[in-house]
Amino acid sequence: MSSQPMRKQVEEYILGLQDRIVSAFEKADPNSPPFRRDEWTRKEGGRGISCVFATPEDDKSILEKAGVNISIVHGMLPPAAMKQMCAEHSTVPIRESAMPFFAAGISLVVHPRNPHAPTVHANYRYFEITDLPTEGEKEADGSPTKGKLLAWWFGGGGDLTPSYLYEEDAVHFHRTIKEACDPHGAALYPELKKWCDKYFFIQHRGEARGIGGIFFDDLNDQKHHVLSDDIQRPRTPEEIFAFIKSTGDAFVPSYLPILERRARTPFTPAQRRWQLIRRGRYVEFNLIYDRGTKFGLLTPSARVESILMSLPETARWEYMSEVGTQEGSEEAKCVAVLRTPREWV
Amino acid sequence: MSSQPMRKQVEEYILGLQDRIVSAFEKADPNSPPFRRDEWTRKEGGRGISCVFATPEDDKSILEKAGVNISIVHGMLPPAAMKQMCAEHSTVPIRESAMPFFAAGISLVVHPRNPHAPTVHANYRYFEITDLPTEGEKEADGSPTKGKLLAWWFGGGGDLTPSYLYEEDAVHFHRTIKEACDPHGAALYPELKKWCDKYFFIQHRGEARGIGGIFFDDLNDQKHHVLSDDIQRPRTPEEIFAFIKSTGDAFVPSYLPILERRARTPFTPAQRRWQLIRRGRYVEFNLIYDRGTKFGLLTPSARVESILMSLPETARWEYMSEVGTQEGSEEAKCVAVLRTPREWV
Repeated sequence: MSSQPMRKQVEEYILGLQDRIVSAFEKADPNSPPFRRDEWTRKEGGRGISCVFATPEDDKSILEKAGVNISIVHGMLPPAAMKQMCAEHSTVPIRESAMPFFAAGISLVVHPRNPHAPTVHANYRYFEITDLPTEGEKEADGSPTKGKLLAWWFGGGGDLTPSYLYEEDAVHFHRTIKEACDPHGAALYPELKKWCDKYFFIQHRGEARGIGGIFFDDLNDQKHHVLSDDIQRPRTPEEIFAFIKSTGDAFVPSYLPILERRARTPFTPAQRRWQLIRRGRYVEFNLIYDRGTKFGLLTPSARVESILMSLPETARWEYMSEVGTQEGSEEAKCVAVLRTPREWV
Repeated sequence: MSSQPMRKQVEEYILGLQDRIVSAFEKADPNSPPFRRDEWTRKEGGRGISCVFATPEDDKSILEKAGVNISIVHGMLPPAAMKQMCAEHSTVPIRESAMPFFAAGISLVVHPRNPHAPTVHANYRYFEITDLPTEGEKEADGSPTKGKLLAWWFGGGGDLTPSYLYEEDAVHFHRTIKEACDPHGAALYPELKKWCDKYFFIQHRGEARGIGGIFFDDLNDQKHHVLSDDIQRPRTPEEIFAFIKSTGDAFVPSYLPILERRARTPFTPAQRRWQLIRRGRYVEFNLIYDRGTKFGLLTPSARVESILMSLPETARWEYMSEVGTQEGSEEAKCVAVLRTPREWV
């Protein structure tokens, strides 16, 4: 067990994970330019590194657009963001005013160019809300006090969004994640898979964004509003952080083999068109429903380019498109799974 | 003055206006296929006609994607939608339960193919909230009572979104609309232009969606929450409806000359790319901020295809794009006007 504060432990972990993930993608496509690395600082407090792959004028790369971002920020949460926080996180105390917060996380979205290779998303984050520091009070080391810790939690998950369904890919992705979850509690994978299917649901379309994975939020030592009290799950900060590290570490083995298997499959313009229509749905989910995106855009001095990095390079919207409606087609097979989520392992 | 109920008058007007607008576009591009006309009915009550232009596999048409939709619907507004209604419309009575509503409107978005031809949007609508009908009560004609009229209002407007700024186009568009407004009150155009710049603002980008036009909501005979009591403006249902008709009739003369002037301008792939990036911003506004879209998606059995008709056929998102940032470029000229809205007439 580390004697470091959790803030510091999470920061170190996501820095290393970002490096490992970006290197894995670069190794998978050695002829393409490396990811662009942008370090930024936030004037209200904190910093981040956005690692982005985008070559708008070139179409030979395996990836079309990808972002692997980390941010470690702190400051005051304005009342509007605080209000949303309280509504969504049962352990956050209700306060009318701005409150100090700390947030550290890694967030990635990868859109490959080939319609047969699925889009992937993962995100792991740690959050703290502290009390307003008392005037003049100091920490043990003499620095200004951070204020009493009022609430903390971990959240995260990863999920896969194919345009064409390859069952073996779905099984591989889910099995790898399940194996990362199981040592931390046998009920975790099934519960978090269910939560994922529910969270990534495009209400107005009546379909899921993708074929799932895991999703969780508000993991801490309190009674949980989604997970039943009976299930075995990580509860202390150290236990939850160990679970986060297992699932974070599972990202590369869960996705890279799929990307390498599909990225060079020959495809037709019609298949590309279908992929871009599916990307339109991805945009709909992220801009209308995704809490992370909404919260990000509400945060003052948020780095918009990093938040909207999740959007694909191109997306299409066709009115009453006939693509995907033909029974028995490969496109319809994918839609069927999005309408009725399936168990893969 | 018509002796018909306002519901009926609005319905007739928007039906005719839709026809005139669609015909004008079809006449402007006689070699392209006509708009597709979809009539639909809503099982909870009401109907609509979506007139849509979309030829995904062909790139010779002047328009890339266009929808001119009308809907005349009624039913019960569920509590969630009712709550949003109350928050946004000061004259809507606060009720905890679902309430009967009636809504009729015309809504159009036109995305031309050529980057030099601007996107245009217009929308005119009439809304009623009525009391729950008393059991057994009948109208004068013997039909079941509609319940007492609790609130009514008109809303609407029209605005232009260029990728490349042609000042003469901006002036023509605004002047035509101003001339339609002026007979109904000299302060209307300047007030509604201001409202338009404010409404179509993409907060997280710090820029407007386009170069404005007019926008208004909650026009009725009550004290208005935006328009000062001192200004001369239409107040009775008949006066407001006359104003709606003037501005609705102004659509074709405000936009068609611009389309015809720009639709055949030669353009480069770089200009097309810029246009698609601007369309990405259009998508961001519509999915994140637009109240009509949000409200539409909340309405049970909403016709999603008609609501999301406003989205362009294709849009692009580039991370930290350098396009538009070069000082003195035509792209930067457009961005400057979006950041600092200008008076055109």
